[in-house]
Amino acid sequence: MSRTLVLVLLVALAPPLPAQELRQSIGDYVDAHQKPIVSELWQALSLKAVARDRESSREKASFLRERFVPRGFDAELLETDGNPLVWAEKRVPDATRTFLLYAHYDGQPVDPSRWEQDDPFNPVLRDGTLGAGASLLDFDAQARFEEDWRIYARSASDDTAPIFAILAAVDALDAAGVAPSVNIRVILDGEEEAGSPNLIPAIARYRDKLEADLMLIFDGPLHPVGRPTLAYGARGNLAVELTVYGPKFPLHSGHYGNWAPNPAVRLAQLIASMKDADGKVVIDGFYDGITLDASTMEVLDSVPDDLEGLKALFGFSQPDQVGASLQEAIQYPSLNVRGLQSAWVGADARTIVPDTAVAAIDIRLVKETTADAMYDKLVRHIRAEGWHIVHDEPDDATRAEHTRIVRVDRRGAGRNAFRTELDDPEAQRIVDALTEVWSDAPIRIRTMGGTVPISPFIAALGFPALLVPTVNFDNNQHSPNENLRLGHFFDSIVTMAAILTAH
Amino acid sequence: MSRTLVLVLLVALAPPLPAQELRQSIGDYVDAHQKPIVSELWQALSLKAVARDRESSREKASFLRERFVPRGFDAELLETDGNPLVWAEKRVPDATRTFLLYAHYDGQPVDPSRWEQDDPFNPVLRDGTLGAGASLLDFDAQARFEEDWRIYARSASDDTAPIFAILAAVDALDAAGVAPSVNIRVILDGEEEAGSPNLIPAIARYRDKLEADLMLIFDGPLHPVGRPTLAYGARGNLAVELTVYGPKFPLHSGHYGNWAPNPAVRLAQLIASMKDADGKVVIDGFYDGITLDASTMEVLDSVPDDLEGLKALFGFSQPDQVGASLQEAIQYPSLNVRGLQSAWVGADARTIVPDTAVAAIDIRLVKETTADAMYDKLVRHIRAEGWHIVHDEPDDATRAEHTRIVRVDRRGAGRNAFRTELDDPEAQRIVDALTEVWSDAPIRIRTMGGTVPISPFIAALGFPALLVPTVNFDNNQHSPNENLRLGHFFDSIVTMAAILTAH
Repeated sequence: MSRTLVLVLLVALAPPLPAQELRQSIGDYVDAHQKPIVSELWQALSLKAVARDRESSREKASFLRERFVPRGFDAELLETDGNPLVWAEKRVPDATRTFLLYAHYDGQPVDPSRWEQDDPFNPVLRDGTLGAGASLLDFDAQARFEEDWRIYARSASDDTAPIFAILAAVDALDAAGVAPSVNIRVILDGEEEAGSPNLIPAIARYRDKLEADLMLIFDGPLHPVGRPTLAYGARGNLAVELTVYGPKFPLHSGHYGNWAPNPAVRLAQLIASMKDADGKVVIDGFYDGITLDASTMEVLDSVPDDLEGLKALFGFSQPDQVGASLQEAIQYPSLNVRGLQSAWVGADARTIVPDTAVAAIDIRLVKETTADAMYDKLVRHIRAEGWHIVHDEPDDATRAEHTRIVRVDRRGAGRNAFRTELDDPEAQRIVDALTEVWSDAPIRIRTMGGTVPISPFIAALGFPALLVPTVNFDNNQHSPNENLRLGHFFDSIVTMAAILTAH
Repeated sequence: MSRTLVLVLLVALAPPLPAQELRQSIGDYVDAHQKPIVSELWQALSLKAVARDRESSREKASFLRERFVPRGFDAELLETDGNPLVWAEKRVPDATRTFLLYAHYDGQPVDPSRWEQDDPFNPVLRDGTLGAGASLLDFDAQARFEEDWRIYARSASDDTAPIFAILAAVDALDAAGVAPSVNIRVILDGEEEAGSPNLIPAIARYRDKLEADLMLIFDGPLHPVGRPTLAYGARGNLAVELTVYGPKFPLHSGHYGNWAPNPAVRLAQLIASMKDADGKVVIDGFYDGITLDASTMEVLDSVPDDLEGLKALFGFSQPDQVGASLQEAIQYPSLNVRGLQSAWVGADARTIVPDTAVAAIDIRLVKETTADAMYDKLVRHIRAEGWHIVHDEPDDATRAEHTRIVRVDRRGAGRNAFRTELDDPEAQRIVDALTEVWSDAPIRIRTMGGTVPISPFIAALGFPALLVPTVNFDNNQHSPNENLRLGHFFDSIVTMAAILTAH
């Protein structure tokens, strides 16, 4: 019997560790291996990866693939029309289920001039947050890392850290002699920040490599209270732009004010027709099909949002009244005017009747409402308000025939929402594993308010999915000075180990 | 008896010419002296005069002052805190009345890159309009000028030409042996395009030099039909900016859409509360005090506006319904949203709940409505709609206390309207003179829609005033390629002579 086979058998036959022992064992491993674990992540953060930079993206993908091989994974780059996907698989003897772990290796584009370091792809270590005036530390000189220390680098939190949590968790379990309870598949996206255009096409080419019983998406920050968090769904979105037409060119507001129709006023009237004073959408059928039963309300109410704190932080006293709470509100679709533009304001303002007025709108969707259905409802509402809808610049004949003309531009197909039901049994195994390892039930988010590019991928694959955020809330995701709190990273390795041994 | 005295007596005693003879005589003079008349104007247009350029403005002022001296005027530069005013006076023996003729010698700022000539202050002569593909002509080589030829130069039409119409009319009357019927005072403003900040202060220093029975303001274009035009008033204006506050900083529209109040929606609701679907302002008392009696309506209806043509040109089918016609509409104050701005639209749009939304508003005033009264009405309306008004950024305590917060910025004191009544006897003399000389009643504009910086100056001086536009409608005033049609200029000399001999 070869040594390898003996090891495999031993691992396969080892009984699962009780959760507290697992936590202790993984924690000790991480504590003893801080430097190599963090160094490997540090090395990855030195590799530039912004989706549009194909060459450096491929370099980072290759680097990542190579990390999986020595951990007993089959690992490949799956070619797409864009950046390659990193795929890795570790089969576990006797495992009957498979988890597909998703993360992305690309980061948001950077404007280095706005960072407090020369190069966002040259990570720096600080003994706390920039906001609190933290000092720079020499990475190489450190043997150990405090929990409050942070790595500042693009993609540190969003979303390179979870990749290294997977690797470290696999190492730690191996060192503890504990086998994962499931076959592990990993898929790493190199274009998430560009909207993941190649995930759906990848299904056609690589479906066999992507099948699983549960997808776990490691992305995003923990709830601000810092407790382990699971999200069962995310809202979709649909962007629409409305352009209202006044005169063909700006007119002198003295010569023609009171006579030439003002597109800014008319746009305001159109927008005002869509929502009431409480912020509820009054478009016919907008909230159709949504019911929140008692057990759902219980889960929503159990989320420890500090709404008073948020209101103070954000500086408003009275939220919109779509739901009684933030969690309840985001179970519903929203209609948000994200931008308005007509001529000029401030020092640039001119005494004109503007020629056009534009409103950029985004509609957040929930599972009960598709992008197509919502678009139809919006269009029906606009028509019912007496508008003539065009999809290009109106020509002279159109202008001569119609009083109220609005151009409706649907910006893309939109992304539908996804939601794994709260009582899904695969999801419940993860809840139990996290509850046991942390001695505390995770926060369960029924629907995240935001939209993840992975939504249509989840829908197309057709098996349940959970979002598992792990990084610090104040990570400056998508902003300059993105950072990762190391305490959160170390904890995420324990979380990852618990998930990989869920039973 | 000196020769001068003989001449003065002869001139003073000569009977007024019948209007047709006057027209013939002045016309002949202009025809015979085209080259020197146009050359003098051409020379003035070669002098840069933009209000903020103090040195060149003074050069042009001095040049103009010197033009009046050989015509028998006392002429001075009246110093102000800005550019000097050019003042000139010609006393006429036995004249019992005095006209104050106003024009301005500054032009709009220029962006030479947008002009079809190297230097807007280096005039060029064309044999028609640029739009019709006119050719350049060598000015020096011309002995005569066609009526359709145009001078392209900054300030050609707005407003240097009328100054030279005064000078040429004085010369032509002198040559015809006809004395002006009034003492002539001339005041030339060097800062009109900068809002004439030094006109009102000049009254305190130079009131004696400014007194008259009627002020005649030579500025602006003829009605598009090209008939002589008189305007009895002009609307005032008041600019106000409204800033509605949402969260202190933009929030993710996914995470917080449906919960964080949206300032763009709330601003739209506020604007929508101010006007009805027909464009009528529904702010309480907005149109108070305005009545248009039958004789006024007759004057309004006699203005030959081509409303169907304007609608086709401007590209809208249905004007706002404040008045039955454009002329009627501008007898009323207007509320115009001249700009809207909140976050971004188009390719720059981001999925956020914006932090602020701004509307730039201008209110056009008529004689019955002052800027202060209108501001009060607007503020009262906003409060009645449930808004808390601030005049600075709201602080945390204000944000915590109030649901709807709007910053109301009154931008300056505003300018009140002026209007000389349609039956004013001084004005009627001008109507009669123009009717006789042109064998056609002038178009009488009761109120011009736009606002002239001279309004408060007129109000402060306290005697009647008329606006006498003379230049071509398509002069590209305030735009690149400003131009003067020479036929209009030649006619304006006849108009000027008729005014100066009104009896």
